[in-house]
Amino acid sequence: MASLDRSLIAGLPVFDGIAAADLDRIISQARSMRIARDQLVFEQEQEAHSFFLLLDGHVRVVKSTPDGHEVTVRYISPGELMGIASALGRTTYPANAIAAVDCVALAWPSQLWPTFATSFPSFSANTYKVVGSRLQDAHTRVIEMSTEQVEQRVAHALLKLIKQSGKKTEEGIMIDFPISRQDVAEMTGTTLHTVSRLLSAWEDQGLVKSGRQRVVVIEPHRLVVVSEGRGSKS
Amino acid sequence: MASLDRSLIAGLPVFDGIAAADLDRIISQARSMRIARDQLVFEQEQEAHSFFLLLDGHVRVVKSTPDGHEVTVRYISPGELMGIASALGRTTYPANAIAAVDCVALAWPSQLWPTFATSFPSFSANTYKVVGSRLQDAHTRVIEMSTEQVEQRVAHALLKLIKQSGKKTEEGIMIDFPISRQDVAEMTGTTLHTVSRLLSAWEDQGLVKSGRQRVVVIEPHRLVVVSEGRGSKS
Repeated sequence: MASLDRSLIAGLPVFDGIAAADLDRIISQARSMRIARDQLVFEQEQEAHSFFLLLDGHVRVVKSTPDGHEVTVRYISPGELMGIASALGRTTYPANAIAAVDCVALAWPSQLWPTFATSFPSFSANTYKVVGSRLQDAHTRVIEMSTEQVEQRVAHALLKLIKQSGKKTEEGIMIDFPISRQDVAEMTGTTLHTVSRLLSAWEDQGLVKSGRQRVVVIEPHRLVVVSEGRGSKS
Repeated sequence: MASLDRSLIAGLPVFDGIAAADLDRIISQARSMRIARDQLVFEQEQEAHSFFLLLDGHVRVVKSTPDGHEVTVRYISPGELMGIASALGRTTYPANAIAAVDCVALAWPSQLWPTFATSFPSFSANTYKVVGSRLQDAHTRVIEMSTEQVEQRVAHALLKLIKQSGKKTEEGIMIDFPISRQDVAEMTGTTLHTVSRLLSAWEDQGLVKSGRQRVVVIEPHRLVVVSEGRGSKS
């Protein structure tokens, strides 16, 4: 197997401030892997043997509830860590991670986490930020669900997705991975029926265009207006 | 000023696994403080100069939204850390913390956080757990708001509060700090009207008893049934 080069991770926010020699040490302990679309990267409640860095693709993180509901917690973009149970003081994965497209990732054994955290203070500080922003995101969702109409929440979710992984196309900004109306419903705490109704209304108004597992935002600024609760009711 | 003794913090989960001499070093850098009921311990978006350990009392953590909504994020019980912006990679406090009753707390300058985290690996590991469980709580709330009826969410919130800070009384288990119906509404993403309607119905059924800023759970097992969505609709 050819060895991995530190250029794979140099420049990523999570490895910011780490010396080249240390990056070499970090990358030398990683293994690279491909994950085919729809395959599990890791599984909820299973032993967290590894933590991962997504190099290419998109991964959907989904929590299953005991009564069979599924809630999409977030999408992971290239350059982001995932499966960092150690940073949450856990020994099992808190959710399922499913490749939304074909992916490439690096994996490290979880037992290296404490060594990385104490040997590389920048890594420790950077991962605090990762966890902090995920906590912030979760609270933002709680607040949105407490205070916003479903229309605003769906608009916020689409805006967040195009910000995180939008791709410019001739039609507008496309969410760069397959996403179904059911996925959007699971992200916003509403039903498939409601998401379908909203997307159809917005399509009629020329704000978005959507098809099977595909959403393009044509008029982001008008969607911002909707997300702020200033849009016309549909 | 009399010096603080390590017995104040020994035995708390967050200081688990730390040697006595190190506890002495940690406590010697703390300052103790009283916070009167309804006073702010720290303020959202202000510079996070200190982090805190609650020794006595209860503190309500509330996020304000730009459009003036307030959402109760959690209640802090004795022995818990609060204002740990450093553990979230932040330099400002993410929320407001308000003393729900008269409180006693310890405070350390935030600049000590990185030193504590690298000098005391147990402290670092324990605080990962704190942040991990708060993230887990936030996701649980998102899931509850996505999948549960409001009746279940309010039942879950009351059960969580009596588990965290219930006090046995002759009538039943009392939530051991002043809590209003509005507070419960802010914790569960519903309206004051709905909480009032539910508490009245449950009072009629003999499950709870509530008054101004006071909730007693008389029949926790029947409330569990409601929280699981198996209760009679009210």
